[in-house]
Amino acid sequence: MSDNNEYVPPKIWTWDKESGGKFANINRPISGAMHDKELQVGKHPLQLYSLATPNGVKVTIMLEELLALGHGGAEYDAWLINIGEGDQFGSGFVGANPNSKIPALMDHSGSKPVRVFESGSILMYLAEKFGEFLPQGGTARAETLSWLFWQMGSAPYLGGGFGHFYAYAPFKMEYPIDRFAMEVKRQLHVLDTHLAGNSYMAGDTYTIADMAIWPWYGGMAKGVLYDAAEFLQVDEYKNLQRWADQVGQRPAVQRGRMVNRPFGELSSQLHERHDASDFDTKTQDKLQAGEEE
Amino acid sequence: MSDNNEYVPPKIWTWDKESGGKFANINRPISGAMHDKELQVGKHPLQLYSLATPNGVKVTIMLEELLALGHGGAEYDAWLINIGEGDQFGSGFVGANPNSKIPALMDHSGSKPVRVFESGSILMYLAEKFGEFLPQGGTARAETLSWLFWQMGSAPYLGGGFGHFYAYAPFKMEYPIDRFAMEVKRQLHVLDTHLAGNSYMAGDTYTIADMAIWPWYGGMAKGVLYDAAEFLQVDEYKNLQRWADQVGQRPAVQRGRMVNRPFGELSSQLHERHDASDFDTKTQDKLQAGEEE
Repeated sequence: MSDNNEYVPPKIWTWDKESGGKFANINRPISGAMHDKELQVGKHPLQLYSLATPNGVKVTIMLEELLALGHGGAEYDAWLINIGEGDQFGSGFVGANPNSKIPALMDHSGSKPVRVFESGSILMYLAEKFGEFLPQGGTARAETLSWLFWQMGSAPYLGGGFGHFYAYAPFKMEYPIDRFAMEVKRQLHVLDTHLAGNSYMAGDTYTIADMAIWPWYGGMAKGVLYDAAEFLQVDEYKNLQRWADQVGQRPAVQRGRMVNRPFGELSSQLHERHDASDFDTKTQDKLQAGEEE
Repeated sequence: MSDNNEYVPPKIWTWDKESGGKFANINRPISGAMHDKELQVGKHPLQLYSLATPNGVKVTIMLEELLALGHGGAEYDAWLINIGEGDQFGSGFVGANPNSKIPALMDHSGSKPVRVFESGSILMYLAEKFGEFLPQGGTARAETLSWLFWQMGSAPYLGGGFGHFYAYAPFKMEYPIDRFAMEVKRQLHVLDTHLAGNSYMAGDTYTIADMAIWPWYGGMAKGVLYDAAEFLQVDEYKNLQRWADQVGQRPAVQRGRMVNRPFGELSSQLHERHDASDFDTKTQDKLQAGEEE
């Protein structure tokens, strides 16, 4: 095998700050704040601190879906956490999420603020708070939660495994790419098989399981992540493709994707979101720039 | 860097069945049943199909904790799924968990069986079914769920990342070992910092977050996993060590660790569990063999 150089690990691991490839500057073997910076707080009870990565998008989709149903209590301020700049190591953010990862949510609606971190946990929290997108019991609830947790435990192999070694590592290594490509294809096949007999992940109803899975695996299916559509032959997963299109056409999903997005096409970027009209402003921007809707 | 051989991935990934190291025979790029085999069903409403890996142990700890509180409805049959033998690819198991991973739970207490898969989902399901180990609301519930989801999203870097490349891969690679060692040390530091100010993960109360985190990160702290205690210098995480000991001393945790365990010391093995007295039998075995309690 081409990577085999009989490397022998030392007795005790030590940190080489120079290694790590893209994002090496934000990966460290210790946690905690690196600088003092309070979080900004806007006018709504819900304050989101995030970035439009797949994990961030899960939550903005959920909030936009809740607003689309008329839950005014789901109005939110979304503040941009630029992880390339180290915003996640500010003292305020670490207080909201000691794990220093986006997204983090602060709920100021009660007598004292409640912090919620991990995208799956935030989906659960909002589903319970508003009584939406999470069936109350029986098979439908069990399926929703099983697939929600499936996403949380599976996507690290897609992002931190395949994505890192295929797209971000400082050089290409055959064994890790093979290992994680195989696992991602297995995961895509699990979803494709399940969606052959189900409209949505938990059956007939759109739930937080779809919102959790779509940004990662819908993204893979549509070739949005890691430029790996041909490598992994994602077009063969026909049921996954059908579902990815179906979810992607929802207006709340399209709005959710834009929030806290400082990259991609300019017309898709809404760096901060503080009011529903912020999307209209974007529409005006696009019309003025002569872009298509 | 020692692994750099300027490997160029092909346009389209293909499966090389010979690669993969330990467990290569059970990793595939497709999902689904490989052979027909119905699941066994015992006398209790709850039927668990599992193996005493960290993910399996989470659930048997929870069931033993529920029984210790007097919840007779938590009586269960625990059947051994030998993943090295491919039991997870039997048709019955795939029906219970289309992802072919342990643990899987079937609840026969209602009008039709409910399947629950993913260890975190099973913990949630049992916590809700019996109203235990998951605070009802406020900060305590948000903390419990945030740390539960934290475990699900973090442990793949510990198991599928660090554990694989440090202990199971067919040869040692410097870059992946460094990458995942750094992340695991960061995770251990996150826990250690949090446990400096909290008795348990969600504060003063023992919850499903502790049950989820202990088998993985308590295992790392106590040197049980991957023989990596010296490499990662786990003794420096004093608060994590305190918590790992505290949780590990619980009788239900000690029982939970034994269930579906076909490896380790003979006195710690209880291959199947169908009744509380099965543990007494083990005690008798040990006494007869002259082992310490």
